[in-house]
Amino acid sequence: MVNIAIIGVGTVGCSVANILKENKELIQARAGKEIRVVKGVVRDISKKRDVEIPLTTDIDEVLNDDSIDIVVELMGGVDEPFKVVKLALEKKKAVVTANKALLAYHRYDLQEIAGDIPIGYEASVAGGIPIINALKVGLSANEITSIRGIMNGTSNYMLTKMINDGVKYDDILKEAQELGYAEADPTFDVGGFDAAHKLLILASIAYGIDAKPEDILIEGIQNINQDDISFAGEFGYSIKLLGIAKKINSNIELRVHPVLIKQTQMIAKIDGVMNGISVIGDKVGETLYYGPGAGGDATASAVVSDIIEIVRAGKSSPMLGFKKPFKSENLVLQNKENIQSQYYFRMSVEDVSGVLASIAKTLGDNNISVDTFLQKVIENSSIATLQFSTHECKEIDVKKAISQIEKFDFVKDGVSMIRIEA
Amino acid sequence: MVNIAIIGVGTVGCSVANILKENKELIQARAGKEIRVVKGVVRDISKKRDVEIPLTTDIDEVLNDDSIDIVVELMGGVDEPFKVVKLALEKKKAVVTANKALLAYHRYDLQEIAGDIPIGYEASVAGGIPIINALKVGLSANEITSIRGIMNGTSNYMLTKMINDGVKYDDILKEAQELGYAEADPTFDVGGFDAAHKLLILASIAYGIDAKPEDILIEGIQNINQDDISFAGEFGYSIKLLGIAKKINSNIELRVHPVLIKQTQMIAKIDGVMNGISVIGDKVGETLYYGPGAGGDATASAVVSDIIEIVRAGKSSPMLGFKKPFKSENLVLQNKENIQSQYYFRMSVEDVSGVLASIAKTLGDNNISVDTFLQKVIENSSIATLQFSTHECKEIDVKKAISQIEKFDFVKDGVSMIRIEA
Repeated sequence: MVNIAIIGVGTVGCSVANILKENKELIQARAGKEIRVVKGVVRDISKKRDVEIPLTTDIDEVLNDDSIDIVVELMGGVDEPFKVVKLALEKKKAVVTANKALLAYHRYDLQEIAGDIPIGYEASVAGGIPIINALKVGLSANEITSIRGIMNGTSNYMLTKMINDGVKYDDILKEAQELGYAEADPTFDVGGFDAAHKLLILASIAYGIDAKPEDILIEGIQNINQDDISFAGEFGYSIKLLGIAKKINSNIELRVHPVLIKQTQMIAKIDGVMNGISVIGDKVGETLYYGPGAGGDATASAVVSDIIEIVRAGKSSPMLGFKKPFKSENLVLQNKENIQSQYYFRMSVEDVSGVLASIAKTLGDNNISVDTFLQKVIENSSIATLQFSTHECKEIDVKKAISQIEKFDFVKDGVSMIRIEA
Repeated sequence: MVNIAIIGVGTVGCSVANILKENKELIQARAGKEIRVVKGVVRDISKKRDVEIPLTTDIDEVLNDDSIDIVVELMGGVDEPFKVVKLALEKKKAVVTANKALLAYHRYDLQEIAGDIPIGYEASVAGGIPIINALKVGLSANEITSIRGIMNGTSNYMLTKMINDGVKYDDILKEAQELGYAEADPTFDVGGFDAAHKLLILASIAYGIDAKPEDILIEGIQNINQDDISFAGEFGYSIKLLGIAKKINSNIELRVHPVLIKQTQMIAKIDGVMNGISVIGDKVGETLYYGPGAGGDATASAVVSDIIEIVRAGKSSPMLGFKKPFKSENLVLQNKENIQSQYYFRMSVEDVSGVLASIAKTLGDNNISVDTFLQKVIENSSIATLQFSTHECKEIDVKKAISQIEKFDFVKDGVSMIRIEA
């Protein structure tokens, strides 16, 4: 018999309790022991919940109960769950968490406290998709070359609607908020921060990189407009918000930003709120994992698979915890400025002579050469939209060129830039 | 130190030896022990191979060598590898195989001989995609509702070319043969038998069904023509060869056949030689696993992940062997005639009066109601092509209706039927 407590009994917490009940016999057969939820810890005990477990508001009832073997942390936030998980691990309780923000900041702190005590976190990245399992076990013969993921359903839903239905950013954001896909303050999703948390977790598994969100390049989808989408469509690209981890010799690039990516690539075909993660291994080539990145039952499916793994294999499981992978001490986080990529630019300019020459010279001076170029004069105005893609060049040169171009008087409202993912 | 022998040192066998060499340290770190290939068994020892392992033609050198712990079977065929694997298991050697035909016929015979000795077979289904791992571990909180897979790269390559480039079946078959994707006798691939072998393996994991290829519905892509492809395109469908396992109450449907499937479904977007498997779990919903289904290094990636799992976890691993899943004794293989589906029909008829009425009556008499109907008269002829899709109806009724319609004098060359996958 294994006893479990759930800290935070919201949508996912209720689903965890219900799955453990509804698939009880099947789960017992797979785990090898009966699993029982003995306590749920909540803030507001008067709130009606769709679950039949004993509730309390007192976390100490869990922490001081030696009969509780596994603590499932589903509180949200960073500081408060960090305290709770730390205390649980110190009491030798195994922990399962779906909390990506907690892990983005404290995964190595927690691993140090945990030692041999298992920490399961399959649910923290891409909800129901067993991506941690694939990376740690399924692809174990490989060194990971790159990970590229659609890891935020809200942004992907918005981009899909903007591309397929021609909807404007502001309108689709409002719709996403009404549907409950986006929060009142949507920055966490559309600004790339949620995806960054998940990317950092995956990068730890593949490369052992101990970075925090503020250490990596994070850009959101807020500046994408229908001009970008038409340009992309015309040249066979889709636009996606990707979390990207790439190994280039001993440097690890970690970045979250929108990309133009060829429509024929499998990851470009993932539409709506769904998530998908492409992993390239040095031997297997590309594999991709697709599924629901959020939702109570989907996320709880991953939480329960971790519970089963802890009960079945415990500390001998390769799927749990954040032990640094083989030879990761040789790998370092790539400086943001040293990224190399192809780029796409959009800017509005006054339609006067000399504009193109000035821009072309600025690009040339910064070692940037243009691939495809498109100019459209806006009807009944003296304003033209310039859009172009470049051959591969250096991020630092691009940043310099943008700051120089933005100083020209004929450039209106700054320069928009999107990286192109090959 | 773990000693391995490879039986059959072709493309995959060479890749296995080379991956174990090239990623030796990484694999040792993950497995916990050094892994060494000590022998390769080949038919023709004079043949030049891209591998540096001691070769022999005498299988007994492996079977009688007590220092060999794991036998990797990559021979191909059924009877000969069955003998070899049986002998290896009797000598208490763990076995890893990529041989889907062997397992389609003898998986439960081998499991009975093996007892607690591990059998790894991740490579036998969909090459480098870790689908066995996902089914057994990643989705362990779920009862599997359905599995639908593109599990034969040759057929998918041909269908993709027929759809995207309008190429005729015979022409693309010739091209696939020239590219080495299809054999001189392509029946195994285009007839659905290869996919059926893989489906039977997956169905054993999910449902414990002990069926052989001859027990299940297998149809190939040989009759698909450009008329079918235009009809599909016009109504938003793609055409794919799928292996399908579905749980309907206590009945398990197992079938391999082409389907019309909505282009918006993720599995419909998998093009070319790639494989992909959609799994619906009762809790997680749909997840999909995509990657290379063949090729030396991709297949060897899966073989080596099994070797690592055997060395690391041995008989305690949930990923190995064919132990029957929970409550599978309650499940039975659904009779082929009891399948229910939507259907699509194509037939050529003489363009004379009364044709439609006769066909409509036959359909009605068999409880088949039409959804979408298309009639095209072939230019400068008295022949028309009829194409229509139906609402959901019973396979047995469809078979009866087809046999009745084919008896009409005005019907030329029989009736083509493709199931529609919702």
